[in-house]
Amino acid sequence: MNEFALIDRFFRRAVHDPAVRTGIGDDGAVVVPAPGCDLVFSVDMLVEGRHFLADAAPATVGHKTLAVNLSDMAAMGARPRWALLAGALPDFDECWLDGFTRGLFALADRFEVTLIGGDTTRGPRNFCLTIIGEVPAGAALTRAGARAGDDIYVSGTLGDAALALAVLQGRATLGDADFAMVRERLETPEPRVALGERLRGVASAAIDISDGLTGDLQHILDRSGVGAAIDVALIPRSMPLATLIDCAQRDLALACLLAGGDDYELCFMAAPSSRQVLAAIALEAGMPLTRIGHVTATAGIVVRDEQGTPLATLPRSFDHFG
Amino acid sequence: MNEFALIDRFFRRAVHDPAVRTGIGDDGAVVVPAPGCDLVFSVDMLVEGRHFLADAAPATVGHKTLAVNLSDMAAMGARPRWALLAGALPDFDECWLDGFTRGLFALADRFEVTLIGGDTTRGPRNFCLTIIGEVPAGAALTRAGARAGDDIYVSGTLGDAALALAVLQGRATLGDADFAMVRERLETPEPRVALGERLRGVASAAIDISDGLTGDLQHILDRSGVGAAIDVALIPRSMPLATLIDCAQRDLALACLLAGGDDYELCFMAAPSSRQVLAAIALEAGMPLTRIGHVTATAGIVVRDEQGTPLATLPRSFDHFG
Repeated sequence: MNEFALIDRFFRRAVHDPAVRTGIGDDGAVVVPAPGCDLVFSVDMLVEGRHFLADAAPATVGHKTLAVNLSDMAAMGARPRWALLAGALPDFDECWLDGFTRGLFALADRFEVTLIGGDTTRGPRNFCLTIIGEVPAGAALTRAGARAGDDIYVSGTLGDAALALAVLQGRATLGDADFAMVRERLETPEPRVALGERLRGVASAAIDISDGLTGDLQHILDRSGVGAAIDVALIPRSMPLATLIDCAQRDLALACLLAGGDDYELCFMAAPSSRQVLAAIALEAGMPLTRIGHVTATAGIVVRDEQGTPLATLPRSFDHFG
Repeated sequence: MNEFALIDRFFRRAVHDPAVRTGIGDDGAVVVPAPGCDLVFSVDMLVEGRHFLADAAPATVGHKTLAVNLSDMAAMGARPRWALLAGALPDFDECWLDGFTRGLFALADRFEVTLIGGDTTRGPRNFCLTIIGEVPAGAALTRAGARAGDDIYVSGTLGDAALALAVLQGRATLGDADFAMVRERLETPEPRVALGERLRGVASAAIDISDGLTGDLQHILDRSGVGAAIDVALIPRSMPLATLIDCAQRDLALACLLAGGDDYELCFMAAPSSRQVLAAIALEAGMPLTRIGHVTATAGIVVRDEQGTPLATLPRSFDHFG
C-alpha cells in the first residue's frame, strides 16, 4: 500500500460540514469561516514512549491525540470544528492504524470535528494534531484575565491519570476496579468542551490542566499578574486517590493531586458574584465544579494543607526539558 | 532551561499582525479572519534522517520546515498568514535551536508569516508545521479544475534538489560550483508564493512539486478526471542537470527531472487563451513559466522523449510507504 492509498483507506471520509470547500486530497484544505467568529488554533505533538506507551491500545492513542487538543479548545471556550493530523509511522501496520483511526474518529464524531488534512511519513511513531475552533468575536477565554478576589475552580477530579501512571510504573498499587477507573482517565481523557463553551462571559481566565494543577495555575497567575491561595482539602479527588492521601502513600498521592498532569480538567477563575451561575452550570454539565481557593494580589501560589499550614515546597509539575 | 523558558527564548517574538488577538503563550491562538476570505490550511511533518540529514545546518532545517508549507500555500493561490510549530527535540541544544530558529524566522519575516503557537517535547528530532493562509472566497486553486486542451506549465527548473541528493549519496558527481547551486535548491527551496497568488483566476488547477513531476501531475489528473501528454525536451532544467542528461548519466538525470521531488516549483494548467497573460506573469515574477505539454481527455500520462517516442516506463516518484 502506498502513502496515498493509506490516506484514502484510513483517513479520508465523507465530509458533512458545508463550511469545508476542500478537504483531504489537495495541497491545502479550504474552509469558510463563520462571520462574526474568531478562530482558535492549537497543536499538540504526542511521541511514543513519552505521551503514550509503546504497548498502549492503538484506539486509546487515537483518542488521546485528539482529546488533548479538544481540551485546549475547551480551555479557550472555543467550539472545535476542524483538525489536521500529521503522523510518523515506523511501518505500515494495518491493524494498528485501524485501531488508531477508530479511536480518533469515534471522538471526532462525538464532537463533530472534521479531519480536513494531514501528512504521513515514515519515522519514529509520533502524531501531531492541529485543531481549529470557532468562538464569537472577542469571547475567547484566555489566561490573562484573573483578578485578585476571584474564586478559583477546577472541574471533575484531579490526579487520577498520574496515579494510573504511578501504578503502571510500579510506584503504587491499586485494586483492579480502581486501577481500571484511573487508567481510563489516563488513556481516554474526556475533554471538557461543553463546559468551556458555557464558561464564556463567566470565567475571567481559564487553562486546561495538562502538566499539573500548580504548574498550570502558575501560567494563569503569570499572565494575569496575580497570585493564588488554594487549600489541599478542597481539591476534588476520586475515591482511590482520597484513600491513598489519607493513609497509605500521602506524598505520592499529593503529588498526583497537585502536580500530576494529564488531567484535562479545566482550572478557571470567576468573580464571587458568579457562584450561583456556576452552580447551575455544574448541574447542567453533570460534573462537579469545585472552588479550591481564590486569587490574591501577591505573586506566587500558597497551598495550605488540611490544617491550614502552607506547604513549604510544592511537588514539581511536568516539564519536558526540566 | 525548562520548556517554557525555551519557548520564550527561541520562539516568542513581538507580534505585529493586528489580526492576532492572542499569540504564543495561551492554550490556543486567537485570530480574526478577514471578511470575504476563505482560510487555507496545510501541515507537513519533517523527520530527521528522512526529510533532512542529521548533519544538515540547523538554519537550513528551519528554512525548509516553513518553506515546504509555504509551497503548499503557493499551490493553493493563498497568502500565508500564520503558522504553528510543534517540535520534538532529542536534547536541549542551544546552538542547534539558535540556528534552526534563525532559518525559520528569516523566511517567516520575508513572507510576513506570524508564528502564533506550537508545542515542544522531547523525542527523536521531528518538526510539524501547520500553515494558515487566506484567499478571496472561492478563489483557491485546487487540483480539480484541469480540462482537456489546457496547457501544462511548470515554474523554474526541475530536478536540481534530487541531483544534489544523488551527489550527497555518491550516485553522481558535480563540480563545486554546480554542487553548491543544486544543494541550495535542496536545502533552502524558495516557495513560489507570489506566483501562486498571481495565478488565481488564470490557472485551472495547480500543485506544488514535492514528490516529483509525474507523480504530482498524476494527482491533478486523478482529481480532474483527465490525462496529460508532456515532452521531456520541454521540461526546464538547470545547466548542471542538462549536461548530465545530454552526456554522462542520462537515466539518473531523467529520473531527477521527471520524478526527483523536493522541487517546490508549481505545476499548473491554464487555457491556451491565457498564454499572453502567463508570459506577463513570468516577466513580473522574474521566473520562467514553461509550457511542457497539454491536458488530454484520456487518463494517464504520456511522456515523449526528445525524438517524440513515448517512454515505456516512468521513473517512480517518491512514496513514504511504497
